[in-house]
Amino acid sequence: MSDTAIQTLKNMLAHLDDAKKYQSLRDVMETLPAPDLAAVFEDLPPEKMPVLFRLCPKDLAAEVFAELPPDTQSALIQGLTDKELKVVIEALFVDDATDLVEEMPAGVVKRILSQAEPDTRQMINELLKYPEDSAGGVMTTELMELSPEMTVRQAMDAIRQNGFDKETINNCYVTRKDRTLVGVVSLRTLVLEKNEDRRIDDLMDTNVISVTTATDREDTSQLFEKYGFLAIPVVDTENRLVGIVTIDDAISILQDEASEDIAKMNAMAPTDKPYFRRNLWDLYRSRAPWLLFLMVSSSFSSMVIRGYEDALAAVTVLTAYIPMLTDTGGNAGSQSTSTIIRGLAVGELKPGDILRILWREMRVALLCGLTLAGCNFLKLLAIDHIAAPIAVVVCLTLIVTVVVSQLLGAALPVAAEKIGIDPAVMASPLITTIVDTTTLLVYFNIARAVLHLA
Amino acid sequence: MSDTAIQTLKNMLAHLDDAKKYQSLRDVMETLPAPDLAAVFEDLPPEKMPVLFRLCPKDLAAEVFAELPPDTQSALIQGLTDKELKVVIEALFVDDATDLVEEMPAGVVKRILSQAEPDTRQMINELLKYPEDSAGGVMTTELMELSPEMTVRQAMDAIRQNGFDKETINNCYVTRKDRTLVGVVSLRTLVLEKNEDRRIDDLMDTNVISVTTATDREDTSQLFEKYGFLAIPVVDTENRLVGIVTIDDAISILQDEASEDIAKMNAMAPTDKPYFRRNLWDLYRSRAPWLLFLMVSSSFSSMVIRGYEDALAAVTVLTAYIPMLTDTGGNAGSQSTSTIIRGLAVGELKPGDILRILWREMRVALLCGLTLAGCNFLKLLAIDHIAAPIAVVVCLTLIVTVVVSQLLGAALPVAAEKIGIDPAVMASPLITTIVDTTTLLVYFNIARAVLHLA
Repeated sequence: MSDTAIQTLKNMLAHLDDAKKYQSLRDVMETLPAPDLAAVFEDLPPEKMPVLFRLCPKDLAAEVFAELPPDTQSALIQGLTDKELKVVIEALFVDDATDLVEEMPAGVVKRILSQAEPDTRQMINELLKYPEDSAGGVMTTELMELSPEMTVRQAMDAIRQNGFDKETINNCYVTRKDRTLVGVVSLRTLVLEKNEDRRIDDLMDTNVISVTTATDREDTSQLFEKYGFLAIPVVDTENRLVGIVTIDDAISILQDEASEDIAKMNAMAPTDKPYFRRNLWDLYRSRAPWLLFLMVSSSFSSMVIRGYEDALAAVTVLTAYIPMLTDTGGNAGSQSTSTIIRGLAVGELKPGDILRILWREMRVALLCGLTLAGCNFLKLLAIDHIAAPIAVVVCLTLIVTVVVSQLLGAALPVAAEKIGIDPAVMASPLITTIVDTTTLLVYFNIARAVLHLA
Repeated sequence: MSDTAIQTLKNMLAHLDDAKKYQSLRDVMETLPAPDLAAVFEDLPPEKMPVLFRLCPKDLAAEVFAELPPDTQSALIQGLTDKELKVVIEALFVDDATDLVEEMPAGVVKRILSQAEPDTRQMINELLKYPEDSAGGVMTTELMELSPEMTVRQAMDAIRQNGFDKETINNCYVTRKDRTLVGVVSLRTLVLEKNEDRRIDDLMDTNVISVTTATDREDTSQLFEKYGFLAIPVVDTENRLVGIVTIDDAISILQDEASEDIAKMNAMAPTDKPYFRRNLWDLYRSRAPWLLFLMVSSSFSSMVIRGYEDALAAVTVLTAYIPMLTDTGGNAGSQSTSTIIRGLAVGELKPGDILRILWREMRVALLCGLTLAGCNFLKLLAIDHIAAPIAVVVCLTLIVTVVVSQLLGAALPVAAEKIGIDPAVMASPLITTIVDTTTLLVYFNIARAVLHLA
């Protein structure tokens, strides 16, 4: 929904509220999808929020609540009575309730847990044990479980009886008495099965792909794309079912990870807040330290230049091609480094592929370097009217710098991955800084050799 | 699945095939998920493929086929008889069949269409009309449609009768006789409803969010993340239901678009082929033209330097800080440009926000610039032992270049979006090139003014 639509709705709700037309207010809110209503809520003055929130039907209220950013949730909770808070918590899916507990300040958490029913509290505490970036940290325990010896009829009865508070019933998981996961059966299969006496273990898919609670949440999410799942079961180390990750969480994780990688690849500390929700200080903190670090690192290039001042003084025209050479090196490095980082991120490349990668990168870089050098040589002679030996120096440097940049650009992210650093931080800006110094050293040494400088 | 697992399976299948143990071969293949089996198929010699393919049960064969890359599909089709091909085409979902027709060479397309049943052929031709990057181009027409006046019992009967060949029945779409979309009802709701005589129009959700056939496929996919849908209905201009887009396609589109943006942001032509499926020529073609374009553009910086050769000759130490200044400008520009590009891509920012964006960027840039200049000033005096006036020149340039770079970096992608160019091409490398020239001009002019050069 666009900003103007949100504004219109906000005004509409404020008018209805002022005129105390509560029935109409309720009717209007019921026509809105939860994420849109949440966007309107975010913009409301804090004192209006509880009034409107109380008018929402219970399930819609829970959905809206789950969509709100943490600071709005916290403000809203303060305006709710204990009884109202209890209703919201019980209506939330348990993974959303756990996220809430993770985000709220300690005082609010205490109030939330004291209002939760004992079994909800237990499920929340169970989920809180897992690291946030693991499958355990994003799973829900509200799943539909069936036994292998059930018939289709019994299974459908069980679903009708227990399905209402499950996060999804589109896939049901088949477990033995000790909760060992033995199969999966979709609601579709159950509904379309003509023989209602057929047993679940006869019908279920036994090739279940599952993850453990410790699996990285990004790796878990990639399985959704690869296999086209709607949910993935999460098991403990003894293959006992403890939860499921659903595709709506997976899609958010994949999008967040891509945004994070893009931030890191451009020398920023990643954040999951949208642009206009970050204040100036957030933006400053994510940018300034990296700029500072890279500025200090690029002092090496100043040192190189100062070390070769004599050569530059002898052939001043050499200075004119420094930006072109360092830029080209940086661009060439960014190309290979971002290709490899994304390949690692989507699971298409593995650190073990390093030799195959370097062999390809070297040949591509050589082709690119030769093309650039050829074009540049003609331009230097015909347009810039530079002496041929100097043109040779510039063009030889161009070839070497493209090859070195693309090899370094490919090797650094793989090396980072191998030693457990996020490859994305090895991206363009860092590569550019490293490549600059290398390029300058190559440039001045070739110049000395070709032009016979001291 | 890892490369070594694929290798092991490939060997296993080859052995079973050589020993003509077809029953075991079939049993082994049936235990594998389709995407894994497809990965094994890709590596098989072309003459083995049809043999193994024939042993797969029909539905698994169709799934495996849909997962294969186009060149393997084409090779496999050549090894199949017309009758076998017909079975595969009819078992494919119609959106996968359409993708196949779009990717195959003309001769193969003719064979495919001649083997398809008349109604399949009609659906394929229907889908071929829509541009590949629109919702129409990625939707399927195999959806479950219900009438508003049906009871739950009638609806379940309809699903049992017609649901088997639908891509999904988890959501059913409610249409009037003229196919106008009036609501959506989930299979979950139908299954959990206790009163089987309740009418669909009483139970359905009438706030249906739909897209039109012309909606961009990326915009369509973003709705899945925002609203947590499993499928989105696609309507024509008169709100008549023509198809659905399912979440498995949406997740691939979002991942592909993120990869494409990362490629463009790093000066490469995007491709949807995995790294090792691209040959040297593909890699070269995606990289060399951009490197060449950026190299030529960075000639402007050479021109600037040559224009100020007198100033540089008078104060040679100025040269030493050129790479540090241009790098910092480039890095600062990349930060804001990538933030804005990603914000536009995930729908968090809109071109209309430009003034708010520039106002924030200016303040953040000023803070960053002042921080960098302060640190650098101390370093120049204490470590580099540079004369104070030159240090002032360098630091003033730093402030101006960070501010200009971040403003340009924010403005260019928004401007690109407004005139209909992909904002991602405005990213780091292009910004770097533009910023270089600006930085140098600022540097030399400040130097002239402060140092009273001619």
